[in-house]
Amino acid sequence: MKKVAVIMGSDSDFPVVSGAIKTLREYGVSFEVHVMSAHRTPSQAAEFSSTARSRGFGVIIAAAGKAAHLAGVLAAHTTVPVIGIPIKSSTLDGLDALLATVQMPKGIPVATVAIDGADNAALLAVQILALSDDTLAEKLDRLKADMEAGVLKKDEAIQSKVAEL
Amino acid sequence: MKKVAVIMGSDSDFPVVSGAIKTLREYGVSFEVHVMSAHRTPSQAAEFSSTARSRGFGVIIAAAGKAAHLAGVLAAHTTVPVIGIPIKSSTLDGLDALLATVQMPKGIPVATVAIDGADNAALLAVQILALSDDTLAEKLDRLKADMEAGVLKKDEAIQSKVAEL
Amino acid sequence: MKKVAVIMGSDSDFPVVSGAIKTLREYGVSFEVHVMSAHRTPSQAAEFSSTARSRGFGVIIAAAGKAAHLAGVLAAHTTVPVIGIPIKSSTLDGLDALLATVQMPKGIPVATVAIDGADNAALLAVQILALSDDTLAEKLDRLKADMEAGVLKKDEAIQSKVAEL
Amino acid sequence: MKKVAVIMGSDSDFPVVSGAIKTLREYGVSFEVHVMSAHRTPSQAAEFSSTARSRGFGVIIAAAGKAAHLAGVLAAHTTVPVIGIPIKSSTLDGLDALLATVQMPKGIPVATVAIDGADNAALLAVQILALSDDTLAEKLDRLKADMEAGVLKKDEAIQSKVAEL
Amino acid sequence: MKKVAVIMGSDSDFPVVSGAIKTLREYGVSFEVHVMSAHRTPSQAAEFSSTARSRGFGVIIAAAGKAAHLAGVLAAHTTVPVIGIPIKSSTLDGLDALLATVQMPKGIPVATVAIDGADNAALLAVQILALSDDTLAEKLDRLKADMEAGVLKKDEAIQSKVAEL
Amino acid sequence: MKKVAVIMGSDSDFPVVSGAIKTLREYGVSFEVHVMSAHRTPSQAAEFSSTARSRGFGVIIAAAGKAAHLAGVLAAHTTVPVIGIPIKSSTLDGLDALLATVQMPKGIPVATVAIDGADNAALLAVQILALSDDTLAEKLDRLKADMEAGVLKKDEAIQSKVAEL
Amino acid sequence: MKKVAVIMGSDSDFPVVSGAIKTLREYGVSFEVHVMSAHRTPSQAAEFSSTARSRGFGVIIAAAGKAAHLAGVLAAHTTVPVIGIPIKSSTLDGLDALLATVQMPKGIPVATVAIDGADNAALLAVQILALSDDTLAEKLDRLKADMEAGVLKKDEAIQSKVAEL
Amino acid sequence: MKKVAVIMGSDSDFPVVSGAIKTLREYGVSFEVHVMSAHRTPSQAAEFSSTARSRGFGVIIAAAGKAAHLAGVLAAHTTVPVIGIPIKSSTLDGLDALLATVQMPKGIPVATVAIDGADNAALLAVQILALSDDTLAEKLDRLKADMEAGVLKKDEAIQSKVAEL
Repeated sequence: MKKVAVIMGSDSDFPVVSGAIKTLREYGVSFEVHVMSAHRTPSQAAEFSSTARSRGFGVIIAAAGKAAHLAGVLAAHTTVPVIGIPIKSSTLDGLDALLATVQMPKGIPVATVAIDGADNAALLAVQILALSDDTLAEKLDRLKADMEAGVLKKDEAIQSKVAEL
Repeated sequence: MKKVAVIMGSDSDFPVVSGAIKTLREYGVSFEVHVMSAHRTPSQAAEFSSTARSRGFGVIIAAAGKAAHLAGVLAAHTTVPVIGIPIKSSTLDGLDALLATVQMPKGIPVATVAIDGADNAALLAVQILALSDDTLAEKLDRLKADMEAGVLKKDEAIQSKVAEL
Repeated sequence: MKKVAVIMGSDSDFPVVSGAIKTLREYGVSFEVHVMSAHRTPSQAAEFSSTARSRGFGVIIAAAGKAAHLAGVLAAHTTVPVIGIPIKSSTLDGLDALLATVQMPKGIPVATVAIDGADNAALLAVQILALSDDTLAEKLDRLKADMEAGVLKKDEAIQSKVAEL
Repeated sequence: MKKVAVIMGSDSDFPVVSGAIKTLREYGVSFEVHVMSAHRTPSQAAEFSSTARSRGFGVIIAAAGKAAHLAGVLAAHTTVPVIGIPIKSSTLDGLDALLATVQMPKGIPVATVAIDGADNAALLAVQILALSDDTLAEKLDRLKADMEAGVLKKDEAIQSKVAEL
Repeated sequence: MKKVAVIMGSDSDFPVVSGAIKTLREYGVSFEVHVMSAHRTPSQAAEFSSTARSRGFGVIIAAAGKAAHLAGVLAAHTTVPVIGIPIKSSTLDGLDALLATVQMPKGIPVATVAIDGADNAALLAVQILALSDDTLAEKLDRLKADMEAGVLKKDEAIQSKVAEL
Repeated sequence: MKKVAVIMGSDSDFPVVSGAIKTLREYGVSFEVHVMSAHRTPSQAAEFSSTARSRGFGVIIAAAGKAAHLAGVLAAHTTVPVIGIPIKSSTLDGLDALLATVQMPKGIPVATVAIDGADNAALLAVQILALSDDTLAEKLDRLKADMEAGVLKKDEAIQSKVAEL
Repeated sequence: MKKVAVIMGSDSDFPVVSGAIKTLREYGVSFEVHVMSAHRTPSQAAEFSSTARSRGFGVIIAAAGKAAHLAGVLAAHTTVPVIGIPIKSSTLDGLDALLATVQMPKGIPVATVAIDGADNAALLAVQILALSDDTLAEKLDRLKADMEAGVLKKDEAIQSKVAEL
Repeated sequence: MKKVAVIMGSDSDFPVVSGAIKTLREYGVSFEVHVMSAHRTPSQAAEFSSTARSRGFGVIIAAAGKAAHLAGVLAAHTTVPVIGIPIKSSTLDGLDALLATVQMPKGIPVATVAIDGADNAALLAVQILALSDDTLAEKLDRLKADMEAGVLKKDEAIQSKVAEL
């Protein structure tokens, strides 16, 4: 099975990004994690991305804040799908990172998830890999059913909270 | 090879969505196109999406404007990757559709592309399918190289425009 | 008298939603409260909504954050009035939920109240039910008069605060 | 059956508001239409609203642009449900009217629909009146089914457009 | 000399509004302070405003948050200048109150100051009253000179902070 | 009676600003009009503003777009009330000019009106001057009554439009 | 004297960028113009930027729209000052390009000018080069004086326009 | 070597601005720091700026919040490059300061950096001065290499964090 690369623009993004790592582990998907910056280590980013396919990566997840160029820069050097996680920073509530990640020009798509949406980035990566891995696809369906069951339980639990109000 | 579903919430989205259709044709990817609404035909949407994997779809592309729920509603019923295209409508310049598409809650990712970014949605779908199709992967690399060559030509062409200024 | 359904997309919305529950109790309106998600339990949401009228519900209140599709998805399956409460979450200050709730396409209205405006959602539900219940209408007028009296008292109270400044 | 009042802040709002009037006619609901301004004719607005219930109005629809106070001002003088239509004007793309209409303080709800969403405002009014009028409720369900059928037809029609692309 | 009315929509606005009160005291301007709501006490607001000129008020300052209609509603009933202070509340960072205050339609101006800008609202009121009161005008010039001197002192003080860095 | 200065940052603002000039003429208020820029003619702006009071100006109206500093810069040099008109330009729909005009720091108020709200700027100036001019105050009340009558006429006129729909 | 590089992300940016070119010509500054994309020709962009200083470039001007990464990517490969021009495109009125250009992380500055502000980008480049070129500095001062004189003439011209109103 | 002026609009901006001061020290660049306000000390600001070039300043850095006019006002009086730092204040998350700083009209550029981006403002100043100072240019390249090395170390360090997750 192909691997997933999880790249963050700064190690300060780790608390958010760790949600993606846990999800990938939960699904038993192989992955590598790197701190790599579109601006501070552009050559490493270019090198990593242009060789990603040949080194067995099937998806690249890139998390960055502010003028978040990381996902776009990685996508520029590969045709492997790139998933972008806009990270909320101290100003503008994540809107800057969202727009800088999602508004990519024709020819270079970035699959953008919600601001700080690291879990969903990983889940999307798993969905992509599951297209050629039936075991993974079944696991996705199973965990989706678990999620549904979890909401039903919460629906039961809320009744007592309502009663206590 | 798996097929791509291209769903638009309203036939008024066709002028934008046609960009996706042309790109899919260019890559020789099989696809189906449908008008289907999260709000006006919710049962059809649910039915389509929950049976998508078994009917051979590998990616679903969903385009919708305003309170764009289509991609999210389709994603709720499948674990096949769903790509969302926010469509600009007559107010708010597409911001409503972008936020309604990308800000998905944990557990149900939507791979969002730029507002009106139909070409990139299709290209992303091709990148996903290419993970298990080397011919497609090569075509992606070839067309990426063509795109690069195209920019280099435009760089040459701009010189005469500058001279004429 | 018809009942009110109060649906929240996640149990984390309960602290806000509880304001609606208290208001409904204050007016003696029957209600049911549920955790139900447009994305995690879409079938339950569809089932609940399409049978709501026949089970005696006169209004559905739906609270959700981020790409808040809950109210719209419920409205898709019923012609009972649906009131949407956009919930503020950790990014974008509630703007995403507001736009995803209010910008509904033609044919499927959602009566949207302020971000985190749960009290007003309940009050609006009471106003709707009061159209065919004169006792309720009188109670609305009485509590509106109380509210007015409350402001007049605060106006008196502020005078001493001003004096102490 | 109770009547619907359709109030617009300026006669320049008529092209948008006419969508609401047509919808009310389609459903055979009685209505009155007025130009009335929260700022230019505040006394008339107050008078109209405070006597609305006793004069047989069951819903008030208020359309206004910019710092759209009309719906809120009408709601201040009645406990009849007030539906607000934010109107897009020459600057800010309707965001000002949306926020000025929807962000109402506790105690005075305004049921807000989409920017320029006049059709939905009328439809919401019909849904509210239909709670005590089964014929109207059946008509709502019938037209909702028609709407669904209409989308299915558009889905068929799009196939030839795709073929021609 | 004419008086200033300081009206706040809710007593929760007092911490911000107190800045205006202190400034008015500093300039020795007569004033009255009231809690009065465009939505909860609309008749009192209308009554207050329409009689303001005859009762000796020269300026009305109105502070309100969210869908801040207070200043506009007061302005609707008088031709005395009305100054609006948009108050920041728990969502949208004050943008809703700013737009609901400043975007007034033709014919009913509201002199809007910064979000939470109570001091400036009072200062603007003093500037207006000073047009027919030379003592007040001189005091404005004197305090403006003091303010300039204050900045010059801070410029000196910053040098040691820089040295300590 | 004191005069009004109408300053625009660029002669391209004239089509908007002319609304203010017409209103001032309508009220018979003396005025001067100037093109003067906070950035291109800063010395003239400073000179004009610091001598405005002594030259008989009672109000300064300043219109500017984009990073609209004009009103603030004029306010920095005078204690005469300054009214700011944010002008919509080719990008950002006037939001930049609005925020750059209204968000003034403590000590230097600018009375901001709506984006492109030149008529209201003039009307506000008249309201300010009317505080010490009873004839002007009466004229304001008279024209306000005319405005009210105008809306009532439009209310009548709309009835036939509704009938024709 | 050092040269200026004017890089645009797409030849569709030329109509805006030409303003920069004309300004550079007006000041007699040497320049090169290129179409070069952060996403479509990333290697050329990296190569151009990393060798810019040694090839005699003193300033790089980069214009791009949407998720405008061009300026940031060029800045990543050089310590020559990079000036960014955010270009308005068909959605979001240039806000996306502005945030993607200006919100650069610590360590990699981009000197950002207004949306579509190509003239100012060139002028800023000239100001930078003029620090070591007194002739250029004098020319800047002379043209600044001309600009001032131009406004004074417009102030004269406006008087007749006012008279004709 | 030319000096850098670091001007802040208020001493409350010092915690942010100190980042610029430290960076300038790190590069051994001479600088002066001042508190100076576009609104409270406009004459000092004008005087400082118009004489800046002759007193040996090569770059002016200006930091201000809200309706941030400081950078623009300084730029109005000089042709020395002016760098603007928009400062985040208590409302609107810095968007007001960003737009008020960057959206400058033609003829008066301000080189704007990120909201609260003081370090980058200083770095940009150093890059500008380095154009005529090879030692400084080498230091920039060296520290850029250090920054790159720092990211590589963080990439190593993150591996153990991932292992511990």
